[in-house]
Amino acid sequence: MTAYEELMGFQRETEALGQVMGRLSWDAETMMPRGAAEQRAEEMGAMDGVLHARRTDPRIGAWLEAAEPEGPVETRQVALIRRGYERSQKIPADLSAALARTRSLSHRVWAEARENDDFALFAPKLTEVLALTREMAACLAGDGPLYDALLDSYEPDMSEAGLEAMFGALRPRLVDLRDRIMGSDRVVPALDREFAEAGQLRLSSALARAFGYDESHGRIDKAVHPFSSGSGLDVRITTRTQPRDPFNCFYSTIHEVGHACYEQGISRDYLLTPLGRGVSMGVHESQSRIYENQIGRSRAFTGWLFGQMQAEFGDLGIADAETFYATVNRFSSGYIRTEADEVDYNLHVLLRFDLERDLVAGRLYVDDLEAAWNERFEKDFGVAVDKASNGVLQDVHWSEGYFGYFPTYTLGNVYAGCLHAALRADLPDLDAALAAGDTSPATGWLGEKIHRHGGLMTQSDLIEAATGKAPTEAPLLDYLDAKFGEIYGL
Amino acid sequence: MTAYEELMGFQRETEALGQVMGRLSWDAETMMPRGAAEQRAEEMGAMDGVLHARRTDPRIGAWLEAAEPEGPVETRQVALIRRGYERSQKIPADLSAALARTRSLSHRVWAEARENDDFALFAPKLTEVLALTREMAACLAGDGPLYDALLDSYEPDMSEAGLEAMFGALRPRLVDLRDRIMGSDRVVPALDREFAEAGQLRLSSALARAFGYDESHGRIDKAVHPFSSGSGLDVRITTRTQPRDPFNCFYSTIHEVGHACYEQGISRDYLLTPLGRGVSMGVHESQSRIYENQIGRSRAFTGWLFGQMQAEFGDLGIADAETFYATVNRFSSGYIRTEADEVDYNLHVLLRFDLERDLVAGRLYVDDLEAAWNERFEKDFGVAVDKASNGVLQDVHWSEGYFGYFPTYTLGNVYAGCLHAALRADLPDLDAALAAGDTSPATGWLGEKIHRHGGLMTQSDLIEAATGKAPTEAPLLDYLDAKFGEIYGL
Repeated sequence: MTAYEELMGFQRETEALGQVMGRLSWDAETMMPRGAAEQRAEEMGAMDGVLHARRTDPRIGAWLEAAEPEGPVETRQVALIRRGYERSQKIPADLSAALARTRSLSHRVWAEARENDDFALFAPKLTEVLALTREMAACLAGDGPLYDALLDSYEPDMSEAGLEAMFGALRPRLVDLRDRIMGSDRVVPALDREFAEAGQLRLSSALARAFGYDESHGRIDKAVHPFSSGSGLDVRITTRTQPRDPFNCFYSTIHEVGHACYEQGISRDYLLTPLGRGVSMGVHESQSRIYENQIGRSRAFTGWLFGQMQAEFGDLGIADAETFYATVNRFSSGYIRTEADEVDYNLHVLLRFDLERDLVAGRLYVDDLEAAWNERFEKDFGVAVDKASNGVLQDVHWSEGYFGYFPTYTLGNVYAGCLHAALRADLPDLDAALAAGDTSPATGWLGEKIHRHGGLMTQSDLIEAATGKAPTEAPLLDYLDAKFGEIYGL
Repeated sequence: MTAYEELMGFQRETEALGQVMGRLSWDAETMMPRGAAEQRAEEMGAMDGVLHARRTDPRIGAWLEAAEPEGPVETRQVALIRRGYERSQKIPADLSAALARTRSLSHRVWAEARENDDFALFAPKLTEVLALTREMAACLAGDGPLYDALLDSYEPDMSEAGLEAMFGALRPRLVDLRDRIMGSDRVVPALDREFAEAGQLRLSSALARAFGYDESHGRIDKAVHPFSSGSGLDVRITTRTQPRDPFNCFYSTIHEVGHACYEQGISRDYLLTPLGRGVSMGVHESQSRIYENQIGRSRAFTGWLFGQMQAEFGDLGIADAETFYATVNRFSSGYIRTEADEVDYNLHVLLRFDLERDLVAGRLYVDDLEAAWNERFEKDFGVAVDKASNGVLQDVHWSEGYFGYFPTYTLGNVYAGCLHAALRADLPDLDAALAAGDTSPATGWLGEKIHRHGGLMTQSDLIEAATGKAPTEAPLLDYLDAKFGEIYGL
């Protein structure tokens, strides 16, 4: 065997163990009995110990030294393994295991605090998670900025400064559009009745299938917070239901299906290798967001969904498909990021981006986080937060130590804007298919341009290869202006 | 840290990883999407590699050398770790991983073959599993007999010769009792209607609670074959339903609850240590069988169950509680071990014991197994097997490489017989509680005498400490004679 083959054989097992670790997290959020949390934390700590030891195994260094990769695939595999090896070596095994254990315990505490609308219940555990995360960031960052080191886990080569520049360009136009919508006198009706859970879940499954989710390599369960989990041949998603808001369920499902189809669509040649996963969280979110919004909330597709919902639930209290399209896209200025319209969504992200940078920098303490959140929310959205589950406790991410993750949502929206412009140019008849509930021209285009490549290209190269130009925020802003301008008669 | 503390710290992580491996198997049989089997096999192989490396880590040898255990608990921990270390060292890592991968794939093939009543579909995979299992047995056995080496995984220190002697004493009295029952002209009615699945599952959960199963540290799901999985704070069980045979569901549940309560009831001091698991499969089966039979199928408890079933399902078509008791215990001479009455049950086990010894010894080939099964079944039970799912494909065990496991069921019945005699002597008023659906005097007695000790004593010492004498088959046979003699007026 060549050094490259030995390296890849070793890596394949590490990837398989990484999948096991991911499946344990899935289990913790869907199936695990309440009383098992302490034992699970030990299991996660032990798994992390195994993975950390493998990821820092000195043989990797020797194989990397000796490997002579041929062609772009092998070269990229080696580059990604080297990147992971160098990062892992900077983190002490004890710290890594402590983080795994604490994250595991923290998730359960967050869910309980959220249920009880009691941030104080969660604050001590979040303080622990943050302290360990900052310690890890310090190991990774060396002399560089802590936040960049964290960001690098989700969006390699992206910096806080780069995001600030992009978000700085986004914010004024988003705020301006928001102000104009709020000034419009056009009234868009909301749904105003209850929708049985069984029907929501049935239609949720139908939507997953309509977007190409392969249930023979996945499954759909309920969870407190929707997520997608796993890679390759076993990619599971979760959703949730609210009696008066079926869109919460449907668009959570479509969002997670976007993530899952990306993982399911990666070339099988890359199974259980570093190329066998989505290249960055920004690109991942671009897939979930374009599935959810540019396709799922399009006029053509909502026309089909209108009929499906009537068939499942009877009269929706909405006059016609055109009104339904506006209802789906209704500007609501609500508390919850995952339920937000496409304009507010990014403002929700920007709020979290600023707060988590303060937390990581040590400028904001966890004990002051709820007050800081509420103050900022009222400033940005003009409404006071009524309870913690509608505010600082709404998202799962920080409980799991995912600091540096939130900006990838808006980055994903930016990428999705670029991809959507290119996709529409390539598929002039797309709306006819969408109006019949057939997303395959769009999802097929994304499969071809994005999914199958896995981690083969960097995210900028990938977007540029798909769209013919470097990504910028302009297509997203133009799309939002046009869509909401029309709906609200601006 | 002392050598003992270092050893136990290392072992604790290994135990935690063992729990992860077990949870993956649970997932494979309950939640895993069909198309994930290939990837799962790689994950199982990788996990096995990790566990094998830890179980043979040379540091264990050094710690064992240096450890100075104090008192019976530490001494037993060290003895069990030494036993595991010596066994693991005999099995090459490649073989161990190949077995893990093949078992993982094999289970899915078995389920499919069973669904299609097609043994030929399963035979190639079973041949592979058997070959690898025999190879492993050869590594373990040295110059000794292969079957003893396998048996040792489930029932330490038990030998094929010892089982032959015990089963030799059992068989004639069982066959005699069977013949007398079949000669009886007393007619015991069977249930003869359908029972809705939702009701079966509701009552199944109620039964689990009635027997003390703690759902905050476990959960109940459906699976092709009922099983119990996990240890400590996360002990899950499965059950199954058949529309016309609710007893299948109820007594599968009670059986698995017996296993689960054993694991849940072990002293928390032993969590994630070698003492934190049931001491042998024979003792494990004694708990599941005594829960299911001596308690669950007792006149007193079935009296309570009769009322519960009427409340859930309405008229059962059974005249009264006394008739219902006979119906629950009805001698049926059926195909399926897990549904068999208490007399036939052991004959089902003896059939498997003989066939699997032939397979392991190389006297019987997998390709001839179905014919051998069918011939032997007709000889023992006087009925021809009508389809493979009622014959050779009914049990999951061989697909998972569990050769040497089946005899522990009858051993468990023998232990259960001993424990039941002692328990009845200690609890003269037990029936009054059982008649009210309260099993706690009996399960409490078992918790005190058996469960809490985990692996502290050898199985013979444990049974002897609980009952005051060495285990023999006499109490089981006396119990069966008395019970069935009365029901069938012999």
